Amino acid sequence: MITADDLPIREDLRGVAAYGAPQMDVAVRLNTNENPHPPGPEVIAAIRDAAAEVAGSLQRYPDRDAVALRTDLAEYLTDETGVELSGEQLWAANGSNEVLSQLMQAFAGPGRSVLGFEPTYSMHSIIARGTGSDYIADARGADFSLSADQACRAVASHRPDVVMLCSPNNPTGTALNIDVIQAVYAEMISTERGVLIVDEAYGEFSKRPSAVSLLAGRPRLVVTRTMSKAFAFAGARVGYFAADPAVIDAVLRVRLPYHLSALTQAAARAALANATILQAGVEALKIERDRIVEVCRALGLRVADSDANFVLFGGLGDQQLVWQQLLDRGVLVRDVGLPGWLRVTAGTTEETTAFLEALTGILSTNESHDQESA
Amino acid sequence: MITADDLPIREDLRGVAAYGAPQMDVAVRLNTNENPHPPGPEVIAAIRDAAAEVAGSLQRYPDRDAVALRTDLAEYLTDETGVELSGEQLWAANGSNEVLSQLMQAFAGPGRSVLGFEPTYSMHSIIARGTGSDYIADARGADFSLSADQACRAVASHRPDVVMLCSPNNPTGTALNIDVIQAVYAEMISTERGVLIVDEAYGEFSKRPSAVSLLAGRPRLVVTRTMSKAFAFAGARVGYFAADPAVIDAVLRVRLPYHLSALTQAAARAALANATILQAGVEALKIERDRIVEVCRALGLRVADSDANFVLFGGLGDQQLVWQQLLDRGVLVRDVGLPGWLRVTAGTTEETTAFLEALTGILSTNESHDQESA
Repeated sequence: MITADDLPIREDLRGVAAYGAPQMDVAVRLNTNENPHPPGPEVIAAIRDAAAEVAGSLQRYPDRDAVALRTDLAEYLTDETGVELSGEQLWAANGSNEVLSQLMQAFAGPGRSVLGFEPTYSMHSIIARGTGSDYIADARGADFSLSADQACRAVASHRPDVVMLCSPNNPTGTALNIDVIQAVYAEMISTERGVLIVDEAYGEFSKRPSAVSLLAGRPRLVVTRTMSKAFAFAGARVGYFAADPAVIDAVLRVRLPYHLSALTQAAARAALANATILQAGVEALKIERDRIVEVCRALGLRVADSDANFVLFGGLGDQQLVWQQLLDRGVLVRDVGLPGWLRVTAGTTEETTAFLEALTGILSTNESHDQESA
Repeated sequence: MITADDLPIREDLRGVAAYGAPQMDVAVRLNTNENPHPPGPEVIAAIRDAAAEVAGSLQRYPDRDAVALRTDLAEYLTDETGVELSGEQLWAANGSNEVLSQLMQAFAGPGRSVLGFEPTYSMHSIIARGTGSDYIADARGADFSLSADQACRAVASHRPDVVMLCSPNNPTGTALNIDVIQAVYAEMISTERGVLIVDEAYGEFSKRPSAVSLLAGRPRLVVTRTMSKAFAFAGARVGYFAADPAVIDAVLRVRLPYHLSALTQAAARAALANATILQAGVEALKIERDRIVEVCRALGLRVADSDANFVLFGGLGDQQLVWQQLLDRGVLVRDVGLPGWLRVTAGTTEETTAFLEALTGILSTNESHDQESA
């Protein structure tokens, strides 16, 4: 049997493994920052009815510009952030991955560069390279923070075409103060180049104001969001962004026509109409997240401040061993490749408790084992 | 108000208009090769039930590799072409645009080239450029045919990384004999480079055998298809391809993870389970297509042989004028930018009759007008 490496694939793809967390059948899956709360009966009924309504005209192409969905997203985001927005300022695609890909195609691409602050969402660098852009990895502070000074120095030194700020940041959970975003934007304007993308995929879980509040008068600022997390809608693949209509004008020049299906548009609108119900889950998850932080700190672990629906915890020594020990106890978390650290998603109360009990047991076993070996 | 041209978009996107046929509210829409037959009650019910079934777990990411859908597609394509296929040979994405984009990302891209034979599906060149590839436009014969000799000479001379053959070809409707595809593949193997993509978006409407019959022993051959046309499923956005599993291995390295939503996967499987019902419409459309060819020829027009669900007709003089005259009579067709030619999609019997009557009326008016002016 031959593989892709026997075909004339691009040199930079030779020997590369496909991106993706293991999809395993484990009792407690806390590895992909999914929302653990399934849509309730009202939401299921709304999606079913929406699907039935559009099914009768699926022989036609969908609305290429998704006007109704974008209007609903604007209304939701206005409610969520308190910033008045219209549909002309919103854009949607199949997950925030596609949204980011379209933005980088328009504003980065071959011969241009994207700057990110690592560790951050690993798809940022993958999408940058996938669009032919150079990806410049700069660093965060030791506690995964990012100060305005540090970020501005990086912008001034690299002069990138696109700057990615992720807040709350995946996989650290840390959020940026709004003044960092303001400072980076001002630095970019002063160097007369670049577009600033703030990835707020986990925005609804944060205590801090959204970068959406900075959009007025900043046409080179883009705030991306997703329905995957807060809306418990990862399976439906709906990402979006808010920006000046000029940014949407740019994205229209690169998007594949009819990229967003009629079913996706209808299902997303059905979910948005039930935002209140779906978002009750967000408050429950914040409580579980804070509990994880508290218990992990009580266990003597290092824990990054989290404004997201997940927690990065460290001081584990061999994190691959602990990852396997958790899996052996039926709990799947994420090894994001940071030595000594693991990432866990806040689950239901039961799932979170199962994780915390498993972790507590593992750490005490490992510790007594270490003492015996010593 | 500012536009994208005031932002730091890529130079090659400056002043570019977004791709897309006008979406107009016209009585008879025969401009985008949509299937005019809406899904019937059984299919609507199947899609509704499928949506309801997956809605309850939309908080989870979809199957990233769409295994069940690809298995169903293999079964369908086996039935349709008589060639035994398995799910490992199939890949699916959001419309054949995304399928082609993934293939070009893997096998073309910056510094590589894609060869096409114009006039052909305009998205081929747009997607090639969108992935950073050079697009080389070679020509067809005067009657829009493409011979093995002509195609092989072009391959030998340009030495492209990807060759696009479209059969039946959009917008001409002309299909390739299988020996042309065999010859081009052999030529590419002899020059030791390249991947051959045969775009069979309109394959179900063709009288000729599918290039799928050539897959065995040809790992650099890819046959793309879509559910948009034969399945009357344009709104659901499901494109796919059949190829050696090594090609899927390559595409896995560039696809955005979770590109295909759980709703799309479920709805496509529901439609595939009703393939027999949906495809009854295909036979009806072939009759309408043949009627268009016959009447247009009787009207003294030039008509390209069509194996698709549309017809390219020429000898119109100013085709923009005839396009407008048809629109004035409530019939929307497509001006594909070929002087003297227009493309019309086969509609329902009523729609097709409305088009033919409008065209007959227009041509006779224009003729008597021409005689008066003469």
